[in-house]
Amino acid sequence: MRRALLEAQAAAARGEVPVGAVVLGPDGSVLAAAGNRVQELADPTAHAEILALRAAAAARGQPRLPDCDLVVTLEPCPMCAAAISLFRIRRLVFGAYDPKGGGVEHGPRIFSQPSCMHRPEVIGGVAEADAAALLRSFFAARR
Amino acid sequence: MRRALLEAQAAAARGEVPVGAVVLGPDGSVLAAAGNRVQELADPTAHAEILALRAAAAARGQPRLPDCDLVVTLEPCPMCAAAISLFRIRRLVFGAYDPKGGGVEHGPRIFSQPSCMHRPEVIGGVAEADAAALLRSFFAARR
Repeated sequence: MRRALLEAQAAAARGEVPVGAVVLGPDGSVLAAAGNRVQELADPTAHAEILALRAAAAARGQPRLPDCDLVVTLEPCPMCAAAISLFRIRRLVFGAYDPKGGGVEHGPRIFSQPSCMHRPEVIGGVAEADAAALLRSFFAARR
Repeated sequence: MRRALLEAQAAAARGEVPVGAVVLGPDGSVLAAAGNRVQELADPTAHAEILALRAAAAARGQPRLPDCDLVVTLEPCPMCAAAISLFRIRRLVFGAYDPKGGGVEHGPRIFSQPSCMHRPEVIGGVAEADAAALLRSFFAARR
């Protein structure tokens, strides 16, 4: 989560909503890390999770990562939660809960849908205070 | 939808699940068209919808497409439905309904969630028979 928080800080410095994500291999090594790049790439799918997952799959040359974990500073949105399922991620660890935009513990609760093909283990609220403080200070500075 | 069906046929010829998508600008011109490339790119986010939407946003240089329509041969999955909302697409037209994997009229019904930030107009079942026949013959040939 420390590495994911660094990616989130770097995203904030680029003027992006501060969210960072890391994909870990089975031995705990970092396969890919990314921060949010929606503004830079003019691409609303360029969330930290999607960028890190795509980079990890590209590095492996395979579309599924069933022995990998994703660590992200914010509860994934519905798009990212559904993508996590498509990538067959083993475990999802996230920082701050997102009652408005989250899709794991809030909104459509993607992994609780009967039609969901793959449910990762989910651990939420890890280093929640740090992740939330980063988001709060980013949005406070913009107001 | 004719153009989207051609993209789906081309995807089948590449060994991909035959789904095709087209983004139309406000005057009805084709901004981007794509077929499914999940296997080729080793990327489970490389659904036809996502590729077409990203290409259209890149061509425009802006992450939102509020005056554009998306035409796709199959009901979008939850990931693609959530992305359609993030791109602020005006109208979604889709072909075959997908009771197992769909996320618009089935599963999490993304646009019906109270937390959904943007709901496009939705028209389903357009050229449904053609889109469904393409999928059926693809999967029949694989069995």
